[in-house]
Amino acid sequence: MTSGDVESTQRSRVVLVRGTGLIGTSIGLGLSAAGWTVHLTDPDSRSLAQAAGLGAGSTTAPDPDDVELVVVCAPPDATATVIAESLDVFSKAAVTDVASLKSSIFDQVHEHAHARRYIGGHPLAGRETSGPGGARSDLFEGRPWVLTPLLVDENRIDQKALETVRTMVSALAATIVEMDPLAHDEAVAAVSHVPQVMASLTAARLNGLDATSLSLSGQGIRDVTRIAASDAQMWSQIIGGNAEAVVSVLDGVAADLAALRASLTTDASQASAAVQALVERGNQGRSLIPGKHGATAQRYAMVPVVIPDQPGALARLFDVVGGLGVSIEDLALEHSPGQPVGLATLSVVPAASAELMDGLEAGGWVVHR
Amino acid sequence: MTSGDVESTQRSRVVLVRGTGLIGTSIGLGLSAAGWTVHLTDPDSRSLAQAAGLGAGSTTAPDPDDVELVVVCAPPDATATVIAESLDVFSKAAVTDVASLKSSIFDQVHEHAHARRYIGGHPLAGRETSGPGGARSDLFEGRPWVLTPLLVDENRIDQKALETVRTMVSALAATIVEMDPLAHDEAVAAVSHVPQVMASLTAARLNGLDATSLSLSGQGIRDVTRIAASDAQMWSQIIGGNAEAVVSVLDGVAADLAALRASLTTDASQASAAVQALVERGNQGRSLIPGKHGATAQRYAMVPVVIPDQPGALARLFDVVGGLGVSIEDLALEHSPGQPVGLATLSVVPAASAELMDGLEAGGWVVHR
Repeated sequence: MTSGDVESTQRSRVVLVRGTGLIGTSIGLGLSAAGWTVHLTDPDSRSLAQAAGLGAGSTTAPDPDDVELVVVCAPPDATATVIAESLDVFSKAAVTDVASLKSSIFDQVHEHAHARRYIGGHPLAGRETSGPGGARSDLFEGRPWVLTPLLVDENRIDQKALETVRTMVSALAATIVEMDPLAHDEAVAAVSHVPQVMASLTAARLNGLDATSLSLSGQGIRDVTRIAASDAQMWSQIIGGNAEAVVSVLDGVAADLAALRASLTTDASQASAAVQALVERGNQGRSLIPGKHGATAQRYAMVPVVIPDQPGALARLFDVVGGLGVSIEDLALEHSPGQPVGLATLSVVPAASAELMDGLEAGGWVVHR
Repeated sequence: MTSGDVESTQRSRVVLVRGTGLIGTSIGLGLSAAGWTVHLTDPDSRSLAQAAGLGAGSTTAPDPDDVELVVVCAPPDATATVIAESLDVFSKAAVTDVASLKSSIFDQVHEHAHARRYIGGHPLAGRETSGPGGARSDLFEGRPWVLTPLLVDENRIDQKALETVRTMVSALAATIVEMDPLAHDEAVAAVSHVPQVMASLTAARLNGLDATSLSLSGQGIRDVTRIAASDAQMWSQIIGGNAEAVVSVLDGVAADLAALRASLTTDASQASAAVQALVERGNQGRSLIPGKHGATAQRYAMVPVVIPDQPGALARLFDVVGGLGVSIEDLALEHSPGQPVGLATLSVVPAASAELMDGLEAGGWVVHR
């Protein structure tokens, strides 16, 4: 993101970011870089000082009448209260938030006298780290940023407030996705919260297995359980707070699971048919996940290449790939237990795969055609 | 694998590979390269000719008394029959197979008069493709290869046969893992079959979601559902054939799921506690999966680097990385909907991360510390 993308009329915008954790500090850094005047507050003075020290904004209090936008980056439980307070104090400001759940906040805020200046928000960006130290001005670049402008009753919305929040999201180079609050919570239940539950359920089954059994683990279970390593406390808040939508999706899972189990304990042909039907439904669901650049997932050609296990081997590989001018869409590295070498699987558009394989082999690489 | 690894006494070994699909042809290619005399058979004359044409072995029939080893690479349903026939015809040979399930074959074979010359086998290697055209001599390099030498009654085993099969696995550079047949089937249920079911169940929930909801998909669900794109018919045979062990693991999943669901529909604090406990059990299970080189999974340092979306960008990145002499343990590429750039997350041993980040930044790369 460059400040040149932002119109000069936006340079004087005054924003108050309430909360200087990872998200709030990143917003402060991004908006400061885009020429906005950013004020910061946080009950934790150490976090606040760190965010200001990083250049995320000023710790001086703004004139309430000057504030055009308040971004509430408080913990989920405190968010609705801070939103209501902000609507009261900053009488001209648009107010938005970044909480990962939107229905419950909507329920708490929508009866507020100035609720029409509140535009719910949820940037789908995050990192393994938390706190201002992990913040970055480009955290939101190209990420979806959901806005929930009370679409259920559009007339209530202050259009100027909505425009201000949209401008902020654009200044941070995120992609605006407008949704109903309930639809948002149902969507993240299906595409984020339930996948986390499923990964954890799968990984939990490994407890108690002996080392020999575990040594048979391949790339499949590694992928399925990667996010099972996530922070338990964070997810307890997220999933606990979206229990209704999560339960709705989990009930679908449980029904599918019960049907599969019943089929597996009857005769072999019925068992096979049930597994096949489930995997086919999974094939279909998987194909719906958008790929790069918002397009529908493309079937890429996979080119597996043997990688010697030594520093610089990947560099040499990519040197050859770069020389061929082929764009690599994805890359997976794989090592098996006791394996002296690795296998890199390069994903490319099908039209480029022959050129890539020929070029790699010409460069002395072992390609598994 | 080089033929220099193989002792000269093994050069005259005569092996019959019965079945020239992906696995059988790869075995033929690998053993031929290691100096073995390989004979091939297959009911499908076209497949047989293709395998022979690739150099996997000869289509001439061996003298039965010369055959030291028969490798049965038949479809699962036919495997036990071909094993029994091989034990009858090749009276001096060790007989092994490559079927992905071992208990049912054990049950069918162990009463055979010459069962002591049968050593069950299962190479954990495969590809997206099938048939001899996808075969490669190094398919098994560094992969686990389970042997199930009827450990339940060790005295029954012909030690010379076991030694012959072990030598074959070593010649193919695979890692021998000896297991009881039932323990094998239970292990692959937990580390392979159930993860496939869980990925399919998760992906199946995406059917019916609208495009806006799907656009919120992040890296988490992409990882969890990657193998949901797998071949439905193949998995129906594998999971259908291992129904008992799969059901046993799925019952544990269903119990955890039911307990979680019950907690999610009570009060909020109980819901959060239940989610936290599950995710923590998942943390623990995930940490048991062996990492590279058979070691326990290491916590790598993650170094996220911004990648311009243009051909050669990854090559330039790896050029810098290669120059630093840092070994990259894993790499994940990520694109979000509408995103003009990508993020590459490099995994390195923690001790190397500072050097890597400094070096990348010195080379002009944007690193998210």
